[in-house]
Formats: sequence, C-alpha cells, structure tokens
Amino acid sequence: MSSTRDVPTILTSTSGKVLQEAPTGREPRYTATSQVQKRAFTLDQYTTASGAHLGPVPIGYECYGHLNEARDNAILVLHYFTGTSHAAGRYHPDDVEAGYWDALIGPGRAIDTDRFFVIGVDSLCNLNARHPLVVSLTPASLDPRTQRPYGADFPVIRITDMVRVQRELLRHLGIERLHAVVGPSMGSMQALEWAAEFPDLVPRVFGAIGGGIATEAYLIAWLRQWCAPILLDPKFKDGHYPPEDPPFDGLSAALELVTLTALSPEWAGRIFARQPADRKLPPEQKLENLFSIERALAGTARARAELTDANAFLRLAKAVQLYDLRDRVQRIRAKVLWATVASDLLILPEYSTRGVQDLRNAGVNVETVSLPTEGGHLDGLHFAGKFSDSLRGFLNS
Amino acid sequence: MSSTRDVPTILTSTSGKVLQEAPTGREPRYTATSQVQKRAFTLDQYTTASGAHLGPVPIGYECYGHLNEARDNAILVLHYFTGTSHAAGRYHPDDVEAGYWDALIGPGRAIDTDRFFVIGVDSLCNLNARHPLVVSLTPASLDPRTQRPYGADFPVIRITDMVRVQRELLRHLGIERLHAVVGPSMGSMQALEWAAEFPDLVPRVFGAIGGGIATEAYLIAWLRQWCAPILLDPKFKDGHYPPEDPPFDGLSAALELVTLTALSPEWAGRIFARQPADRKLPPEQKLENLFSIERALAGTARARAELTDANAFLRLAKAVQLYDLRDRVQRIRAKVLWATVASDLLILPEYSTRGVQDLRNAGVNVETVSLPTEGGHLDGLHFAGKFSDSLRGFLNS
Repeated sequence: MSSTRDVPTILTSTSGKVLQEAPTGREPRYTATSQVQKRAFTLDQYTTASGAHLGPVPIGYECYGHLNEARDNAILVLHYFTGTSHAAGRYHPDDVEAGYWDALIGPGRAIDTDRFFVIGVDSLCNLNARHPLVVSLTPASLDPRTQRPYGADFPVIRITDMVRVQRELLRHLGIERLHAVVGPSMGSMQALEWAAEFPDLVPRVFGAIGGGIATEAYLIAWLRQWCAPILLDPKFKDGHYPPEDPPFDGLSAALELVTLTALSPEWAGRIFARQPADRKLPPEQKLENLFSIERALAGTARARAELTDANAFLRLAKAVQLYDLRDRVQRIRAKVLWATVASDLLILPEYSTRGVQDLRNAGVNVETVSLPTEGGHLDGLHFAGKFSDSLRGFLNS
Repeated sequence: MSSTRDVPTILTSTSGKVLQEAPTGREPRYTATSQVQKRAFTLDQYTTASGAHLGPVPIGYECYGHLNEARDNAILVLHYFTGTSHAAGRYHPDDVEAGYWDALIGPGRAIDTDRFFVIGVDSLCNLNARHPLVVSLTPASLDPRTQRPYGADFPVIRITDMVRVQRELLRHLGIERLHAVVGPSMGSMQALEWAAEFPDLVPRVFGAIGGGIATEAYLIAWLRQWCAPILLDPKFKDGHYPPEDPPFDGLSAALELVTLTALSPEWAGRIFARQPADRKLPPEQKLENLFSIERALAGTARARAELTDANAFLRLAKAVQLYDLRDRVQRIRAKVLWATVASDLLILPEYSTRGVQDLRNAGVNVETVSLPTEGGHLDGLHFAGKFSDSLRGFLNS
C-alpha cells in the first residue's frame, strides 16, 4: 500500500499537448471519443471587475461531444479550487485517472456527450499554474510589459472575472445560449455567477458541494487560514519570489490544509488509523516522528506544490472570499439543481441550506439532492455518479 | 463594538500572584469565596513515560471549597488545550472574566463548592508558558542543568505524564481517593486517562467536548496543521529560538487555527457577516485588505501569542496526537458522563459516538448528554451551565 496514493491526488494527467488557436480561429472539430485534447484561445485584452488591465489573456479549455447546427446544446463545466478544465475523458489512453467528473460526462452518461457539446474551462488564475497543460493566464504567466512573470503584480480577481472571460471563449466558439452551466465547489460558484451575470444565456445551473449565494464569514476566515502558511514562508517575499525558488514549503502546507478539509474522519480512519509513518521511528519518541496520515498528506501536498503557484493560490482564495451574489441574485432566470454531501466539512451543508433558501427567496426554482456518504467534500467528485439520475432528469426538464 | 472582544478570548486574568509551597508543605487553607489564589507545588523530579528525566517540576494549581475530614470530597478539574488551572472564580474582584467553568463550579452549582473540594491544575507543559500565573514546567522554564530554557530540548510528553504529575500533587495534598475527575476537551482526555491510570482513585469521570478513548487519524492530521505555521516561521529555528525573539507570527497563525476550529459558522455570521475590517480598505481592492472576521481573529491570536510558547504548543499537540487508551480502557472502573456539542467542528460528535461505544464495549457505564447549540466546540465552555442538571445528578449517583 502506497500511503501517498491513498490520498486522492485530484491531479489530472500531464500527458498530451495544448492546441493553440488563433484569436480569430474557427471552431475546431471535436471527437466524441474519450481521448481529449487540451486547447487554448487567447483574448487580446481583458479589464477586471476591479479595473485592472490584462492582456493577452490565454484561456485553456477542452471539449467533449459535438456542437449541433442550432448551436444550442452546449454545457459549460467549471472546476473547483484546485482543478483544471479536465472534467472528463483522458488526454492519453494510458492516463490512470480520467477527468474529475468523468462519471457524469460521456456517451450515455447524465451529461450525455452523444447529445451535448461539453466544454471544460481553466479558471482565470488557475491554481495549477506550473502544470504543462494549464495555459490560462495566471501570476506565473509572463507579463508582456516586463517579460517577467506577473507575480505579486497580478491583480485581485473575482469569480465575476472568471465567468466574463469564459463568456468571450463562448463568443469565439459561436455559442450564444447554453443548455446548462455546471460545476462542483468553486465551479458551482462560477455557475451561479454565470446565471446572475448572463441570465439570458443560462437556463439551467447544476451546482454540487457549493455553498450558497455569498461566501459566509466562517469560510472567509478559513480561506485566510489556507493562505497563512504561504505568507509565513520566508521564500514568499511578499509575492516577489523568483519562479525557480518559490515558497514551496508554505504552498505545500497550504495544500495540505485544503486536502484535509476536503476529506473526512471516515476516510482518515479507514485508510490510516493510528499507524506510524515508520515503525522504526515511533511518534512517541521524537517530535519529528510522524503518523502515517501525516506523511501521506505531506507527500501528496508536496507533489501538488510542484505544479501550483503561491500567488495564484492567494488570489483564488481571495476570489472565493469575495464571491457575493446577494445584490444580483434577482437577475437569475435559470432553474437550479443543488447537490450537497452530508459529511462535507469544507462547504458545510448548512451553507447550502441557507443558500437554497436565499435562492428561493429571490424566486429561483431550486431542486436539491444530498449524498449521505461519509467521505466529505471530495465525495462530490468521487461519487458524482450518484447524482446521475437527478442530473439527467434536470437536464431534460 | 470592539471586534477583537467578539472573539472569545479564553484568556484568564493575569492579575494576582502565585503562592509558592515547599515540596513538603502542609495543605494550605482555602476560602469558599469566589476570590481565588494561584498556588504552586514542586515535585523534585519526574521521569516521563518515554524515559526523560525532568526536575524540579513545579505544578500550578488552585482550589475552591474545603477538603473534608475524610479527605474524600475532592474533584479534580483538568483544562483544555489552551487553558490553565483557572476553572472558576476570579483572582481579583475586578477581573472581567471568571474561570472557564465558573457556571459549573461554585456554591450551590453543579460542582458545589459548599460540598466539594475542587482543584484546578495547570497541565505539565502548559501552553500559556509566558502567563505570569502559569508556573507549571514548560519548555520556557529554566533547565537547571544549563540555566537556560529547555526550549527544543524539552521532551515529548503524553497525557499520561500530565496525570502522573497531578497524582503527586494529590499525594502532597493528602488525597487518596477522588469524588470525580472532570474536564472539557483535552481535559476530558486527561480525566479518562486518570480513570485508566489510577482506577482505584477515580469513581466518576465527567468529560465534555472530548472525543473518545484515542485520538483518531483525522484529528491527528489536524493537529499537524495547527503546528505547521510555527515550523514555517523562520524565527522558529528548530525550536532553538531565544525567549526574547520567539516565532511570534507562526504561533499567532497556529492560535488562529485553533480558535477558528473551536468556533462555528453561526458565531461568525452573527458577529462579523461579510463586513470589511476597514471601510476605507475594501477587500476587493487589495490582497492585503481584510474582512472584519480576519482582523478580529488575528488580533485575538496575537494577544494570546504574547502569553504562549511555540515549543509548548508543539508538545501539547503531540501529546493529544499520542492520546490512546485502547490498551488500557479495560482498567477503568469509573462511571462516565460524556457531554457533546452538536455543532462541534473540532471534536466532531462522531468521535464521541465512537468513543462512548468503545467505553461501553469495555464494560464502562456511560451516560451521555448533548447540547444542541450552534456555537461549536467552545459552547462546551460558554454554555457549560447547561450541563448542570445532568452533572449534578451524576455527582450524586
């Protein structure tokens, strides 16, 4: 048993290559096979909600299924905090893991690629900034004005900015109305933001493990805790770290916190119990001697830290803190299917309960579904297939 | 409204002074008034469960009520991770806050000081090592061999060591059998450890917000997260920091994590909602601009970091990780009253459920009581009075 393997990696394959499209390119041809190609579209410029000018803005994405003649069968899939566009399929037949919602997306599945044209998009400021298949603009991208990474100069962004950039990608693909916008966790925040920002384009939203219409104070405070280890790492240097010497230890600790919060006591007890990391180094003998779960979390986090960026982490955490639709919820015309996991310790079920009530108070038609599993937040990815019947019915309604 | 005041301080008053007793001193006289005096007893030497030799070992404590002629009316009160001996009363009439379980301890209260002789004890390696009224041996104490603080040389300790040292204090006070051992959170771990270590002395255990008979893997992993900011602070220097320049930022971040985990969404939403810390510095404009809850947590944690010690923090976290009565639970003869808080996000109610089952499987008579309040772990302190009826009946049984 490899203990690091027992911590869900959530990492997607790095195999494959990115197809670059010209900004004025025609829509590429897509195959319905499970083998997926990462693509990139580049916006010449973009001004953030807070007024910062960015450009050029590459956007990474990938597609499954075919766009129909009427161009009205598209479903946009938006990812969670640590995710990428890779929602389904495999980049390479040998990839061990498929995209994060592969159980929901594919031929004959709830999001049926024989019927729908499905688009997964990297968020602006994607966390996996050092992943070879993540090409969206991040603080690790070169600033054309300086020919150095944006780094600490990358502006604060909001979920609003993520969806406005995605809107430009859809324009490029010739899509003026979606069948649905869907996503887990931060992806469901993006999905509701889509419905509020572009109400005419979004008739349906499916969100899972995603809280409500604004980030609550307790989660705001948690996001601060996630960031704290990065700020304490002396290599962080207020964000002005060189790409070759990043605040790796702080970023690893931050990723450990995220991973642990997204899992559960049931998971931890079943896999690790009270085993020491090394029987020859009992935890009771030295402060440094670890339990098995500690070593596993550290190993996974350090592997992930290789592909992620500390400045991107801080901005994504801020974007989630700033998420707030309270003044715009009345604009939503979509109907909503909202899915929760009973054992979720990150997006506590009570957030969703209050969020659903807020949506209903604003006149939004909301259906709910809850998973009784014990694995915590990540069951919204690992057991997403259990939402299939509800989601299939919802997409047909 | 002072926002730092809205984060429970959990700090006890620093007013008053410590009465030192000779190692062979006779039991001091106690008053039943609410004014409390901190006391200290010193063990000449102590060898830890892992074989480290320590000495002298001062032990801080305080008493409420009178020891009876039969010397059989004593109740030992053991504190939580960040607590001290100050369970009830006030050191000084002007103290704003009373001891943490004052609602349960006093004349006519559930732990009736007109009837019981109540003893609160600082844990060995108390976290509040820089608090003027905490005198128990900690890593900040002078090592008589070097005349410098123990610091990084302080050994790993276990909950077992805490209770063995307490046993010596009771011997000094002439107490050979207790009426009960009680405590919240880490205090309830100590209470069960007492019942397993000295079964003939402990007929009753009352534990609140305290998990089960061994720390589970998920909590082990959380304790690692608590410690991570300290290890990242460059001033930590592997524990070899000078007392005048400690890893203050790392310790503050660690204390923020503890505080947040011990509170709840309901508390956060009610007091802070989505207010910015400063209306002139909106969080959406700069990464550094904070929400109100962030500033409040930081302020409280920094105040607490002034009184606490990073090396003590790491060893207490380790002691809780190492807590494990599975091999000794059969020794327990006490009956147990086990109290939980439904909204507890630190000691999840499921830990207690499993713990109660483990105790019952070992033949222990366990009653349970649960608070339905929404304030999280700390409701086990803030609303402890709600356990009064159950506890009163239990202490009479």
